[in-house]
Parts: sequence; structure tokens; C-alpha cells
Amino acid sequence: MAPAGAVGILAGGGILPARVAEAAHAAGRPVYILGFEGFAEPDVIAPWPHDLVRLGAAGRILALLRAHGCTDLVLIGPVRRPSLRSLCPDAEGARILARLGRSLFAGDDGLLASLVRILGEEGFQVRGAHEFLQQSVVGPGLLGRYAPDAQATADISHGARVVRALGALDIGQGCVVQNGVVLAVEAMEGTDQMLARAGQCRQPGEGGVLVKLLKPGQEKRADMPTIGPMTVETAAAAGLRGIAFEAGHTLLTDRAACVAAADRLGLFLIAVTPDP
Amino acid sequence: MAPAGAVGILAGGGILPARVAEAAHAAGRPVYILGFEGFAEPDVIAPWPHDLVRLGAAGRILALLRAHGCTDLVLIGPVRRPSLRSLCPDAEGARILARLGRSLFAGDDGLLASLVRILGEEGFQVRGAHEFLQQSVVGPGLLGRYAPDAQATADISHGARVVRALGALDIGQGCVVQNGVVLAVEAMEGTDQMLARAGQCRQPGEGGVLVKLLKPGQEKRADMPTIGPMTVETAAAAGLRGIAFEAGHTLLTDRAACVAAADRLGLFLIAVTPDP
Repeated sequence: MAPAGAVGILAGGGILPARVAEAAHAAGRPVYILGFEGFAEPDVIAPWPHDLVRLGAAGRILALLRAHGCTDLVLIGPVRRPSLRSLCPDAEGARILARLGRSLFAGDDGLLASLVRILGEEGFQVRGAHEFLQQSVVGPGLLGRYAPDAQATADISHGARVVRALGALDIGQGCVVQNGVVLAVEAMEGTDQMLARAGQCRQPGEGGVLVKLLKPGQEKRADMPTIGPMTVETAAAAGLRGIAFEAGHTLLTDRAACVAAADRLGLFLIAVTPDP
Repeated sequence: MAPAGAVGILAGGGILPARVAEAAHAAGRPVYILGFEGFAEPDVIAPWPHDLVRLGAAGRILALLRAHGCTDLVLIGPVRRPSLRSLCPDAEGARILARLGRSLFAGDDGLLASLVRILGEEGFQVRGAHEFLQQSVVGPGLLGRYAPDAQATADISHGARVVRALGALDIGQGCVVQNGVVLAVEAMEGTDQMLARAGQCRQPGEGGVLVKLLKPGQEKRADMPTIGPMTVETAAAAGLRGIAFEAGHTLLTDRAACVAAADRLGLFLIAVTPDP
């Protein structure tokens, strides 16, 4: 077996690329961050050996990853699907686009699964961020001080059915349910925008929960559901009672800050294991 | 058989209450419009015998409908589900709320089906608006000059699968699909807001369709999918190629104006009969 080389982090937005870098470094691995221009946050990746590269420059990306001795790769942080025009692929990028083929126009699952496959064919081991961020992935149960009441528990079950049905169609990962009524469903717009909308569509009475689950067949190594302190703040601003997310399959960007925000705002945080 | 009396129109927002009134009048029936305060548009109902009544004043509503000799009722025009607090039910309203019971907290389908049932128990025949607006409901096929291309046709099929799956869960009636990717899914926010969001989430390449279908089991007598000239304008502003809606089960608020807008903006309008 070849000795483990550096961990290459293909970084989109947010703080998580740095968290993965810290975890890999703590495990004794050299770290190299390849930030995607326009997505990776310069302040986040600055403390580590890094480059900022256009998403379309696949030839340069592969060369840099090899030059830095990367054997394992982690894709982490949101990258908005670019327009083909803005991609400006280099020669290698054009070849990879051709290999992606129709999956470029498929849902996210198909595209990301193809990317992971191609990186594997190029000789890299693609790892899930959760393999490094074990403290950011939690088992089933409550975090923090608050627990769902009977109505919220029923709403979580209903929301899980809805997200499972959506996920089977490769649509979003989340929905908001209040007293049995589905207020909002997530597609491409993302969780924050869905939460804002749910706040405007509230129904008579109290309550309301955000449910976020992995899609069936979702490529965990490229696109894991993520919850951060801002998710908790936004859910509270929308008048919700709490957040249910999938145990073992959700990254908490900052677990302590998530729990602190939930306790301060009176929201429950619960990791659930939905029926298959 | 009792002779047909007046047609009582329980009016929410928009122009359709007047269209139903015109159609019933043209069929030789007396017309009475009961507009819901805060929803019915005074200018729309002003030309007809009418009253404006709070949604919660069920006793007054039933008395007025009987005083005007109404034997048939049509529920038409959007009414936002009110908060129980703002409802301020009168004595009869409180009794009806009790009869609605848990369906008050169910999805729209359950609530509307219960309302229709209760009005039936009170001795009224609840009619679908489409029974009066036969010109506003179209059979399968194209309206206007433009037709979907192969990609749009595939997107319509995919969108129909998505809306059917959503509808089975009593969520919304519509979605936007572009080149196989579901951009947005409608829940409580309504079609216009979903279209605006879809415009912001557009993917590489052209295309995009709005698909609107009846939910399986949806109570057509209370909540029929509706498309008007503004829907066409909003879809065009979101960059879409066209609109597919369910043949026989969609009200066009102004068919001529819908077709004129679609022809002017280069959108197709197609009435489809999705697989069951």
C-alpha cells in the first residue's frame, strides 16, 4: 500500500474547509487547500498552503494536487453550479466536461457522483468530510436544553416523509412543517431562503420545525447536509420551534455554537434516524 | 326537485368571482356575491348584489346566503388561511370550527374538503367554478403560437412526476424544471413567488418550464389551479420557455389575454393530461 500523502481540500465557501484542514493536520497529515475562485473565502484558507483556482481549470487543479503530493481529497463547502459559459474550461477541463457528459445537466446527485468517480479514476481517494470531522457528526438524540413536544414530533415525522419523497426525485434536502402543514420545500434556493419564506407563510398557531435529511443515494463525499449557528438563528427568526437533522449524516459547522444559539433562542436540535 | 335558486358566490381575491357571476347570470340564474372581507376586491364584486363579511362570521354568512335564495354555492378566488385569532368566529362560526375540528390543522385539501362537506350538510349544492366557466377550462393541446421543444417536453414529464409526488403529500401544485433540474417547488408561498425564486436559481443553458397540476384528491370545488396573464408575465420574467397545466382542471382567468401574453413573450402554453 502506498504511504498516505497529503490531504487535498477542494474548498468552496464557508468555514468548513478550515475545520477539515485542522482535523487532518491534527491527525498528522500534510494539508493543501485548493480554493475555488469566487467561492472559497480567502481568510478561511489563508493560514494553510493553498491556491485559488478557477473551477474550470481542471488541468491546473490536477497538476497542483499532484505537485503537493495529495493522495486523498475532500470536497467541502458550497459551490454554486456555474454556467458553462463562466466555466471557461482549460484543455483538461474540457476533457473532464466531456467525461461528465449528460450528468452536467442532471440533478446535483448525478453531477457530484460523476465528479467523485472521475477524481477516483485520476488516482485520488475521495474522502467524505465527515471522515475527518467526526466531532461535527452526531449520533441520534437531543443536543442542547430543549426537546420537541408532541406536535413537533409529529411534524418531524411528516417532514421526514416529505423530504424522503423529494429526495427520491433528487430535489433539495429540507422542508418546514408547522402543525401538519408543509410551509416550504427546499429545491435549488438553499435552506436559508426556504426558512425566510416559511416565516412569511406561517399558519395559525405556534410551532414549526425544519427537517433536513440526506437524500437517498446522495453522494456524501461531496454534498453532506450542513447546519451552522446561522441556520439556528434563521430558523428562530422564522418562528420555528426547532431543527431535526439526520444522525450520522449532517455536518455541524460549529457544534458548540449551534447548541449555544439553540439554547439561547429556545429551539430544540435533534438528530434523528428516519425510517428507510 | 326544488327549482334552482340563486347562485351564491363566496368570493376571495382576483377577477374570477366576477367571471363566475357573469356566467351564472348569462345562464339565467340570479347571482349573489358574498365577499370575504380583506380578500374579495370591492371593485370586482361591486356591480352585483353583494355583501362583504368577515370569514369568521359563519352565522351571518349562512343567513345572508339563505336570505338571497341561494341554492348553489361557488367558492372562488384566493383566501389566505387566517389565524384563529383573527377569525373572531360568531356563535355559528364557533360551531362550524368545532365541526372542522382537526382538519383546521391539516393540509389545504383536508380543510377545504371539510368546508365543502359542511356547506353541503347545510343544504347547499357546492359547485365547482369550472361548471360555470367552461370557456376558462381547456382540453389537451397547445394554446397560442409556440410549442415546447424536446428538452421542454422532457422537463414537463419530469415536472409532472414531481408535482404528482408532492401532491400526494398535500403540498403545492407546481414546480419549475430546467433541463432536468428542479429549480423550485411550490408549497404555501404560491406560484408567483416560486417563479421569482426559480429565476434567481437558473442553471447553465436555456430553458425552463412551469408545471402546474391538480393534486390527487384535490377538492376541485374549492381550490382549482389558476393561471392568468400575470402568471405568463412572471414566468417570462423568470426566463422560462413555457407553462404546462392540467387539461380540464385549470382555470384560465382570461384565456385571450393569457394567449396574447404568451405569444408576445415567446412562451408556450400547453394543457397536458399527465399519467395517473
